[in-house]
Amino acid sequence: MVVPFGDDVAATSLQRGLAAVLKTDTLVGKFDIPPGMTYFQAARKAVVMNISDFSAKGVQPKVLLVSLGLPPDFTEASVNDIANGLNSGCREYGAHLIGGDTSQTSDLIITCMVFGTAKTKDIVLRGGSIPGDILAVTGSFGKTASGLRLLLKNLKTPAALRKRLLESVYMPKARLREGLALADAHVVTASIDSSDGLAISLHEMRKMSGKGFTITKLPTDKDVNDFAKLHNLDTRELALYGGEEYELIVTVQGKDWEKAARAVKHSGGSLTEIGVVTADPSIVLKENDDLVEIPYRGWEHFKSEQKEL
Amino acid sequence: MVVPFGDDVAATSLQRGLAAVLKTDTLVGKFDIPPGMTYFQAARKAVVMNISDFSAKGVQPKVLLVSLGLPPDFTEASVNDIANGLNSGCREYGAHLIGGDTSQTSDLIITCMVFGTAKTKDIVLRGGSIPGDILAVTGSFGKTASGLRLLLKNLKTPAALRKRLLESVYMPKARLREGLALADAHVVTASIDSSDGLAISLHEMRKMSGKGFTITKLPTDKDVNDFAKLHNLDTRELALYGGEEYELIVTVQGKDWEKAARAVKHSGGSLTEIGVVTADPSIVLKENDDLVEIPYRGWEHFKSEQKEL
Repeated sequence: MVVPFGDDVAATSLQRGLAAVLKTDTLVGKFDIPPGMTYFQAARKAVVMNISDFSAKGVQPKVLLVSLGLPPDFTEASVNDIANGLNSGCREYGAHLIGGDTSQTSDLIITCMVFGTAKTKDIVLRGGSIPGDILAVTGSFGKTASGLRLLLKNLKTPAALRKRLLESVYMPKARLREGLALADAHVVTASIDSSDGLAISLHEMRKMSGKGFTITKLPTDKDVNDFAKLHNLDTRELALYGGEEYELIVTVQGKDWEKAARAVKHSGGSLTEIGVVTADPSIVLKENDDLVEIPYRGWEHFKSEQKEL
Repeated sequence: MVVPFGDDVAATSLQRGLAAVLKTDTLVGKFDIPPGMTYFQAARKAVVMNISDFSAKGVQPKVLLVSLGLPPDFTEASVNDIANGLNSGCREYGAHLIGGDTSQTSDLIITCMVFGTAKTKDIVLRGGSIPGDILAVTGSFGKTASGLRLLLKNLKTPAALRKRLLESVYMPKARLREGLALADAHVVTASIDSSDGLAISLHEMRKMSGKGFTITKLPTDKDVNDFAKLHNLDTRELALYGGEEYELIVTVQGKDWEKAARAVKHSGGSLTEIGVVTADPSIVLKENDDLVEIPYRGWEHFKSEQKEL
């Protein structure tokens, strides 16, 4: 197999060292559309979910097909909003919507399928981390988890901060330029997208390599720290066990670090060192001199979270 | 575009005259699984639906991805039946299941996505019919419509006939070998699969070419004629306005007819002349000296048909 089963994408060999890269991922209305998200945004998010996996593998998405499941009472205006959201998501990432089908279903369901090609040897897998490698991420973590909590628990938050946190929920971005730049520079030993949260994603990388991770610096930012302080929340909780955040988590050999950071910067993003790959398979957070184990735990679908309220 | 929007498949150019061919189609449990069909058969049918479109274009399917929507009460044994059905369908047609995702949904939903490559110039489109071309089909029509009526209206039918009619419902076949043989022989001016029924499929071909069709011989067989007689049904109704039947409908120039028929025969199938392509855009059935117009009308989902009972 070109890409091992269980990696972010599937792939099959074409001729001359090329691979066809394929991904499908599904957005289900009742679980994946938070309060206040429009159909346009939901459809765009369905595209971003799939593009994010291509980003982590360093592969340019070329075309997209969609399978839409529409409830019987769905209006034509809403279908148009969905079509616009799909096309907008594709345009942002240089892909084209070329086909699909619609069915009548009880739930709103948006299944996207993305296709692209890449040199087989250039596809960045989840399992290549080497002990001593730098663990790094694009962007920061915890904004989406903060935004979802804000929405679901109706937490009072200053308008400007509220706006930024909700933006991360309603208009998530895939790190395609960063992923392509890293693949192009040949500086990444392993890569995954963080859609299941930082904690689960590290566990998924370990599944493929057997190597552990020590996080020495939590990749939060001021907004998440402010939000946590305001509502007496744990920033570790927001940063590690969130999800629906489409950053890249990569490992890079020390000798390639400058080159990697420069490549991402040139693409318009930033790469932040957050820890190290270890031969010991433990996944831990280092706080002062303590090592705290990071369990396999991620965000819960907000609807089941809603039930707890 | 490599393939016009609205044809059986979507496609995008690769290098050196090759195209990536893609198709997605969805089976929804409450509409597309008739009484008595197992989950194995339903999953296999979801594969056949997609492969049939590749067959009509003369393209070998290479890999398949699946997006499964599973109701919360779905058992592991049933999921295994679905996995087995998907793999069995792939094996029959030389394709490989290489990935997918699962979601929780209210209905059972099986969305397949198929990928393959072909020389762009060899992909057989819907719109190339030329007036005077022979209109031909693989296999016969009306068996599935008979089988569904038998099931839904509980019509008493001799055991051997009943078995054959139900086989066409539960274990439909895609005409992949026939489609590949025809494409390989370069003898087809236009092609479509008949999954929406013979009548609708001819209308869909006309949409792309502007040309009409005169059917001079209904492609039914003894089983359909016997079943119609037994229950006082109209064979025209069964043959023209059924669906879920995965035959190929093609047009062939007279000079290529022998070559086309021979190619299909060598592939293990049969090609039957049923009419002619006309410059006049009417779609008609010739009975004795009468020309009866064939409306755009197809099978209804059997669940809505059930409601009428």
